[in-house]
Amino acid sequence: MKLLITLTTLSFIFIGCENKKASISPEQTASSTEKSMLDGNIIDLTHTFSKESVYWVTAKEFKLDTVAFGETDKGYFYSANNFETAEHGGTHIDAPIHFAANAQSLDEIPLTRLIGQGIKIDVSEKAKNNRDYQVSVEDFTNWEKENGTIPEDAIVLLETGFSKFYPNKKEYLGTDERGNDAVQKLHFPGLLPEAATWLVENRKIKSIGLDTASIDYGQSTHFQSHVILLSENIPAFENVANLDKLPVKGFQIIALPMKIKGGSGGPLRIIAIVPDDLKL
Amino acid sequence: MKLLITLTTLSFIFIGCENKKASISPEQTASSTEKSMLDGNIIDLTHTFSKESVYWVTAKEFKLDTVAFGETDKGYFYSANNFETAEHGGTHIDAPIHFAANAQSLDEIPLTRLIGQGIKIDVSEKAKNNRDYQVSVEDFTNWEKENGTIPEDAIVLLETGFSKFYPNKKEYLGTDERGNDAVQKLHFPGLLPEAATWLVENRKIKSIGLDTASIDYGQSTHFQSHVILLSENIPAFENVANLDKLPVKGFQIIALPMKIKGGSGGPLRIIAIVPDDLKL
Ligand SMILES: [Zn+2]
Ligand SMILES: [Zn+2]
Repeated sequence: MKLLITLTTLSFIFIGCENKKASISPEQTASSTEKSMLDGNIIDLTHTFSKESVYWVTAKEFKLDTVAFGETDKGYFYSANNFETAEHGGTHIDAPIHFAANAQSLDEIPLTRLIGQGIKIDVSEKAKNNRDYQVSVEDFTNWEKENGTIPEDAIVLLETGFSKFYPNKKEYLGTDERGNDAVQKLHFPGLLPEAATWLVENRKIKSIGLDTASIDYGQSTHFQSHVILLSENIPAFENVANLDKLPVKGFQIIALPMKIKGGSGGPLRIIAIVPDDLKL
Repeated sequence: MKLLITLTTLSFIFIGCENKKASISPEQTASSTEKSMLDGNIIDLTHTFSKESVYWVTAKEFKLDTVAFGETDKGYFYSANNFETAEHGGTHIDAPIHFAANAQSLDEIPLTRLIGQGIKIDVSEKAKNNRDYQVSVEDFTNWEKENGTIPEDAIVLLETGFSKFYPNKKEYLGTDERGNDAVQKLHFPGLLPEAATWLVENRKIKSIGLDTASIDYGQSTHFQSHVILLSENIPAFENVANLDKLPVKGFQIIALPMKIKGGSGGPLRIIAIVPDDLKL
């Protein structure tokens, strides 16, 4: 039964594999497949880029410049913009070379690292009363007691609950000041370096992500979790949105970054696909 | 048999839906699913962004500025960059508002428009001896004679063969000059406005893409195919890569653009997933 539901949910993907009659006609599939896969089961985990977007307090922020907007003399409407941004801001990816010499740059990350089954570790209750909370080994082992061993090749998402503050910098980052002096005022949750080491040494994950500005917590000075993960070519997704809309497992993650040659990171569009029968 | 293959190919996506034992263990799936779905069946249809990237001859080109690259005084390696770009350049998407007043901006395009089954119309033989070739209604009806009616909600990709010239501007665009005077020297294939109208009036497609710099051919002056498609909220993918690696149908497209608030378009990461049994 389970198998059947899974197949039905996904059948639209591979319709049209055979010639003519073998493919399922749109009319036949519209109710079951369209609805299950496309209406409500694709969840956008991406914050919108705008001048409100949250950046590191020392980084260049997002800026959109209007080049054209309005009716042209030929009679058609036309709009276009330029933009400037740091690679690391808003919902983005850290490529291994961000903190690991000679490691993969953004364009070199294999797509297989960025697509796969997701799991979610929810520490939002602990982070609620502790802005400096760091996800621990115990958070992972507790998850495993409930859900089984973290699957091989999982994409691991950490829900701290801080996404609800975005883009209010004071609440989200702990400060709305900018510049070098503001760095020490950063207070937001992250991943404990010991837990990063545990993941790298005891589990095999594809990539990791969370709903704060950095995989290392705000008070970090040496960014050890970055170094530990990125040295193993495990990319990190930062400023991820809508993790509260995901179940703890059984969903698919598709994280497609802008393909910047030599990039240390860049804008990321990340989505989850949650099967119909796995709604929260 | 067909059904079984399809299920096997996709089974990795939804493993872990049930508690513990119901999920397929990584060891069990490694051979069949990893290989079929993740090794060789994800095709990147995206050109890399760099100073070589092809932009409209009047548009601001991609520029990467190094902010940091090297060992820090704290002992860890660190690299980061800023970048500037026009929304429309390299592999990118045109949002409806690019050529249609009051239409959807980039952040407003529903994800369901960007994910779905793809079909490919190959006109590369015709474009080989005619840089000004425009894909016609006949190209679509000929495809349908071979493959059946264009499926409802298809993502339609036009292969002109020009991707092989990228990023050589003289060969790809017809000119390596820049500025207003260079516009009239643009010679590359596109979609005939009559064919755009036929698609909009007779078929229901989600989005469209091609391997040239514009959905309207290089010699277009009024960009009618843009206006016709975007007015119907059909986004266009431009400067798409690797279409020669796709079959004519039976594959899945996932096209995830940077989520720019109010954007008229922007950088796009577009991939295809081709089932194992559909290799060329
Ligand atoms: Zn980052
Ligand atoms: Zn464009």
